[in-house]
Amino acid sequence: MEETRPCVITLSTDFGLEDPYVGVMKGVILGINPRARIVDLTHALSHHRLKEAAFILSSAYAYFPPGTVHLAIVDPGVGGERRILVVHDRQGIWIAPDNGILTLVLRNHPRADIFHLTNRKFFLKEISSTFHGRDIMAPTAAHISLGTPPDALGEKVHDPVLLEFPEPQQTEDRLLGQVLWADHFGNLITNINREMIVRTNPEGRPTVRIDGRTIGRIHSTYSDVPREALLALIGSTGYLEIACNQGRAADRLGYRSDHVMAVEVCFE
Amino acid sequence: MEETRPCVITLSTDFGLEDPYVGVMKGVILGINPRARIVDLTHALSHHRLKEAAFILSSAYAYFPPGTVHLAIVDPGVGGERRILVVHDRQGIWIAPDNGILTLVLRNHPRADIFHLTNRKFFLKEISSTFHGRDIMAPTAAHISLGTPPDALGEKVHDPVLLEFPEPQQTEDRLLGQVLWADHFGNLITNINREMIVRTNPEGRPTVRIDGRTIGRIHSTYSDVPREALLALIGSTGYLEIACNQGRAADRLGYRSDHVMAVEVCFE
Amino acid sequence: MEETRPCVITLSTDFGLEDPYVGVMKGVILGINPRARIVDLTHALSHHRLKEAAFILSSAYAYFPPGTVHLAIVDPGVGGERRILVVHDRQGIWIAPDNGILTLVLRNHPRADIFHLTNRKFFLKEISSTFHGRDIMAPTAAHISLGTPPDALGEKVHDPVLLEFPEPQQTEDRLLGQVLWADHFGNLITNINREMIVRTNPEGRPTVRIDGRTIGRIHSTYSDVPREALLALIGSTGYLEIACNQGRAADRLGYRSDHVMAVEVCFE
Repeated sequence: MEETRPCVITLSTDFGLEDPYVGVMKGVILGINPRARIVDLTHALSHHRLKEAAFILSSAYAYFPPGTVHLAIVDPGVGGERRILVVHDRQGIWIAPDNGILTLVLRNHPRADIFHLTNRKFFLKEISSTFHGRDIMAPTAAHISLGTPPDALGEKVHDPVLLEFPEPQQTEDRLLGQVLWADHFGNLITNINREMIVRTNPEGRPTVRIDGRTIGRIHSTYSDVPREALLALIGSTGYLEIACNQGRAADRLGYRSDHVMAVEVCFE
Repeated sequence: MEETRPCVITLSTDFGLEDPYVGVMKGVILGINPRARIVDLTHALSHHRLKEAAFILSSAYAYFPPGTVHLAIVDPGVGGERRILVVHDRQGIWIAPDNGILTLVLRNHPRADIFHLTNRKFFLKEISSTFHGRDIMAPTAAHISLGTPPDALGEKVHDPVLLEFPEPQQTEDRLLGQVLWADHFGNLITNINREMIVRTNPEGRPTVRIDGRTIGRIHSTYSDVPREALLALIGSTGYLEIACNQGRAADRLGYRSDHVMAVEVCFE
Repeated sequence: MEETRPCVITLSTDFGLEDPYVGVMKGVILGINPRARIVDLTHALSHHRLKEAAFILSSAYAYFPPGTVHLAIVDPGVGGERRILVVHDRQGIWIAPDNGILTLVLRNHPRADIFHLTNRKFFLKEISSTFHGRDIMAPTAAHISLGTPPDALGEKVHDPVLLEFPEPQQTEDRLLGQVLWADHFGNLITNINREMIVRTNPEGRPTVRIDGRTIGRIHSTYSDVPREALLALIGSTGYLEIACNQGRAADRLGYRSDHVMAVEVCFE
């Protein structure tokens, strides 16, 4: 009998890396499935920036093998009334509190099955009221990685919590969007993607502005402009970004995560 | 022949994650046992906060499979007279410098065997005087994960270094303890656990105070109180915590790791 | 048929750990080789400190099994004219942009084969202009870990970019070098190694000075001097370091990464 391919489980949380919480979840997973391959996506999410978390989650999963189990844990409502959801699609399986963090995954996969995780058979025996990542979600992910079908986990759900996401506004000759988050390099990632730009004007060479300031044309890569110059480009996730060649656009433009920065793509 | 279950090795150090030191230890381990599953618990320990390190280590191991090898390296005395210990119990195996970092593990497992790690057969060939994590402890952990019995590693030890841990004081109607550490969320974890509270008064509904300030009753979870309110609860490790719903208790209460905060549980 | 040993792939980047970029590269690798063992060396490199990055890379690989694939990604020129190199030696395989980051690896392995990575067969199907770590280097590393020979990847290269590294100056009774980087503990690692010191004077007991300040003799380990005292010693990488017993030499001596600190080893 051929050995089965080991399953990948990704972890995205707001736990940070200084405490043992992430490691403890891995211990629970490996105790159930010692062959699971666990990958940290990020542990720097925050419940104060839930839309950013939803965007980061939606930008990453396409690069994982089909069948990957994605745990996403930002859970200030732990132990209260909020449900835990399991989302199942051919592309992958997501486990997360029902707080909207899966909004963009669900928008990308409108036919995915959604279950309310209630089957205690797959939980740890003792369940704390403050760490369901360890006691409920990690062991369930491990059991799924061993072949437990998602429909064994609980009843179907048809009303997941969804966040209102700012959709770019399109007029005849322009797109109006906003910055969603700033990455480690200080690149500002917007909610305007390549398809929207092409749909607005398949031939044009638009100008990009941010908070009224003109950045210029859309370039291919950083080194298309002089060192330390700002530029607009389509980033690696397919979304329009404002960057700075060998510098930090976020610092140059005074980005703050609690302030909305308007982005304009003009074909006039 | 059935394939054996791959062994888990956990790493807890004060190395941080910016330098290559943690990765190099993993290289040494995988060179000896390519199937070992290595889990980072934390690399943010400090020799200035050794009791906190001892507590973190003691709170995590129960969630790992039996037989897991735990490396704990906070080692300012490296290359000097201090011994390296191997602690062996049915629950797991610990390898650490003999500086008290295993105090609470040893208290939980009073019948564990303790060995002085001296058998150079399991070390790297060249041993530096400043990185025994890489040259001695990592290769020994890898050999143990392949089945080397701990009693092959050195002589038995009966006098490990133990830290004096502050034990909560119990009177008829109250418990007096203190804060042990603050986690990434700003939760303040104390040295008073659920069993002590029940033993003091199995029926009562006590009031919790910290540095003389009344926090209130012991709640089940964060969302039991309004947003940004302080609360006391039994945390995920079984110990009393002072937290703040969607906020940071450590900041609200002015926690500093070099100042002892007194915690009082009163049944009067 | 015996199962082959799983291959180790190390990652060294300037991506930080807060964004999902490192995790996404791991997803790409595991999608191609689910048995690859991936080890993070560091994600705190910087294109502003490329020599430090070159030194860190050169200090770590000897502790990994032969055949390990090392990805090193500091790539401000991504999408422009710069080449991607694959360096192949009995000790290991390195994949990196051709910007000098492999200078010390190439100096240590002057007979290594160097290839210009151009064979698109091993890349992802869609290649962004800003994330070749994910689209080109990670999938190529995974294919190499499955046995693809490096000479299938592109043409041989004989003119890799090399950084000018400051070589210590040796006179009859002294060595003049400099600090290369400061690690997490505040240890200052210099470009003077044990062999250079022995070659200068095999018998002597030299005095070490830093920026004109006398540190003293070369000791074996931290605890050879009183607590909080500065000392010189040969560090775990074989290079002279200035450290502080249970303290931070970098803070005590005012180290800044943009200022060159001169180090002197005197036998007079």
